[in-house]
Order: sequence, then C-alpha cells, then structure tokens
Amino acid sequence: MILDLYEAMSTQRAVRRLKPDAIPEEVLQRVLTAAMWAPTGGNVQPFRLLAVSDSTKLSTIQTLYQQEWSEYTKAMRAAGDQLPEARQRMMRAGDYLAAHMSEVPVLMVVCFNPALMAITDAGLNRPSIVGGGSVYTAVQNLMLACRAEGLGCVLTTLLCFREQEMKSLLGIPEEWGTCAAVPIGYPVLKGYGPISRRPAGKMVFQDTWGQSYGSGSD
Amino acid sequence: MILDLYEAMSTQRAVRRLKPDAIPEEVLQRVLTAAMWAPTGGNVQPFRLLAVSDSTKLSTIQTLYQQEWSEYTKAMRAAGDQLPEARQRMMRAGDYLAAHMSEVPVLMVVCFNPALMAITDAGLNRPSIVGGGSVYTAVQNLMLACRAEGLGCVLTTLLCFREQEMKSLLGIPEEWGTCAAVPIGYPVLKGYGPISRRPAGKMVFQDTWGQSYGSGSD
Repeated sequence: MILDLYEAMSTQRAVRRLKPDAIPEEVLQRVLTAAMWAPTGGNVQPFRLLAVSDSTKLSTIQTLYQQEWSEYTKAMRAAGDQLPEARQRMMRAGDYLAAHMSEVPVLMVVCFNPALMAITDAGLNRPSIVGGGSVYTAVQNLMLACRAEGLGCVLTTLLCFREQEMKSLLGIPEEWGTCAAVPIGYPVLKGYGPISRRPAGKMVFQDTWGQSYGSGSD
Repeated sequence: MILDLYEAMSTQRAVRRLKPDAIPEEVLQRVLTAAMWAPTGGNVQPFRLLAVSDSTKLSTIQTLYQQEWSEYTKAMRAAGDQLPEARQRMMRAGDYLAAHMSEVPVLMVVCFNPALMAITDAGLNRPSIVGGGSVYTAVQNLMLACRAEGLGCVLTTLLCFREQEMKSLLGIPEEWGTCAAVPIGYPVLKGYGPISRRPAGKMVFQDTWGQSYGSGSD
C-alpha cells in the first residue's frame, strides 16, 4: 500500500467510532513495525506496546475509561447547547468510544520506563514533558500507519488517572508507566478526511516570540 | 513531491551534519504546515514553533548547546574505544552538530504551554510525560516532512537545561516552556537511509506484560 506522507498527515483525524471487526494480522504487523521505526533519545526505544484484545480485560478497561470520561466531560455536558458545535460532535464521538471500548479489536496501551530516558526538563519549575519525546514520536508513527491502512484510532490519556489499576490488570512492572491508550479498528463512518487546524502563520514565529514567521527581512 | 509514508518512516535517520545552505521558503512552508496537522489533546495545539535563523542568536545558542553537549558526553568520552562503534559514530556526528549549530539555516525551537494541556499523569508518583502527547506528535510530523523534502534534522532536548537563557534570548513568555530544538538543513552526507531498531517482536506484548505478541491463541 502506497500512501503519500502529506496525504496521510493532512487527513489524520481522530476516529472514535470503531467497528469490532478483526484486523488482519499482517496489517497490524505493518502498523506495529512503523511504530518501532520512530526516533527516540539515544535510540534507546524506552517504550513497550501492550496490544489488548482479551475481552474480559477490555471490559474492565471500559469501566475505568467510562468513569474518567464521564468525570472529564462533566463541565462540557453542563454547558449543553452553549458548547460549540465542533465540541458537541467530539463529545458524542467520545461517548460512543467510551460505550464501545470493550468491543475494539485491539487497544494499544503504551508503556514507558522513565529510568531509560534523559528527561532534561525534570529539574525545572514547570511541568516536565520531555520524556514524551521518546514515546509520542512512536505513537504518531503508529497512528499515521493506521491512517495508511484505513484503520481508525485516537490517542487517549484518561486511563493514566487509573494507572495502578491498569498496571495490575495487565501485569505491568513497577518501574514502567503508562502514557497512552490507542483504540484501533475499522471506522464505523468515513474515518479519515479533512481536519481543522490553526495555520502555520499563527503558530510559527521568526527569531523572536510574537514576530510572524516570514515577516522578517532575511 | 510524493513519498510513501512507510518509505519515509523506515529511512528517518537522525541527521546531525547539516549544510549552511538556505532552504527555499516554499519547502520550509510545507514542513511547517505538516507539523500543524498533527493531532493534539482536544485539538488545542498547545505548542508554538520559533524558527531561529538570526546568526547572532544562533551563535549564543551554539555556546549553550556546546556546554551541555560536552557535559552530557563526558562519561562516553571517558570510555573512549570501549564505547560501541555505533555510539562513537553518534558522538562524532553530535560533535559536528555542536560545532556547527550557529550555521544551520534554521533551528526550530519548540515551545509549549502546560496550562493549555490536560496532563493526566501529573499527580502520579513517577515522572510525568503525558504533556508531550500534544507536542511530539507535531515534532514527528515536522521531522517526517523534512525527510520527505530531503532535509536532515534531529530532535535535541539538551537546551532545556538552559531554558531560562533560551527564553530570555528569544523573548518567550513566562508561561511557555521549551521542549525541543530541531536543527534543520540539507545533509552534508547521504542524510537518510537504513535505520537500526529493535523489532516489534521484542517490543510488543499481547494482553499481558511479557507475553510475546502473536503468541496467544486468539
């Protein structure tokens, strides 16, 4: 399967409505291999993927996820029709995911070991995120490969609120953490398509914060 | 330019030897646009890119980087010939980057605002990395687009050790942090090519930690 890189990226939507249909082994193997190719600090690859397909485990995970999703969206729900239409659509799709998490053919739980990372912003007086630089590159590869294979998926992180329960359920060792859960399956609806993002002109500065990119004299 | 997604990913090497040659504006624009396409939590896009091309600022940044690179590689240097050949090669390329940082056509400094993120692992008794999930997806898009355009680049994070100096130099507001600096330029050598990674068979488990993927009965 040949898919242009830019075509893949420019149509990579979050897909939250997934069919329970099985994914052929060779397709999932290509997706997993693509994730492995990602660059990581010192090429250490300080992550592991746990492909959860066991329906009993997925049911337990769904219960945890639904509780956190319900909590996370409480304020949005209270806003009701006041909420922008795009948010309302996102919430309905999220509701679908939360109600069908146990039926996805595979939930990819992303684990990482901070002891294998050089977290260069650990000592700063602000939240640290640099450890993510050696994991979410792989997660993005995973998701782009899903797009190429016609599989829907979405990056979720709410299950971190229940990390101890997730670790017990899946036998994850003490020294490893969890930092994402990516449900993967064939889309119920169209799946991929146009995305809505702020353009580079509003997100990129040149040489100095606030100076629009491309406006300088060099 | 059409480049297959898998071809791009499977040849995405870290390129640390970069020519000072200018990058055509339309090429860099495509790379930046690709970065914007990345998924982020709630589609908030809590990052900004600072494209640094000013030679005075790059000289200052090179000084900071060289100090941190020297410190970071002290133990490796002490090991000398004992160091695996791949590590020695990486270090020589890193030395080249550290000595030529001020000459790259553009250094992309990646900024983020933690207040715009839902950092779901902030309260856990381990290093937090989830904030990276809304930034390094974009950094990976940026780097894959560089690969597609024949541009070399590498994800560096050592400058986080000098964040306050970087923020002063570039006028970055108090509430924003820096989480990566990606030098971009045309490769001095071949640039892209084969990569060396552990295979999925050693990195992916099925349903339970330690159970090889694909070995189960379902």
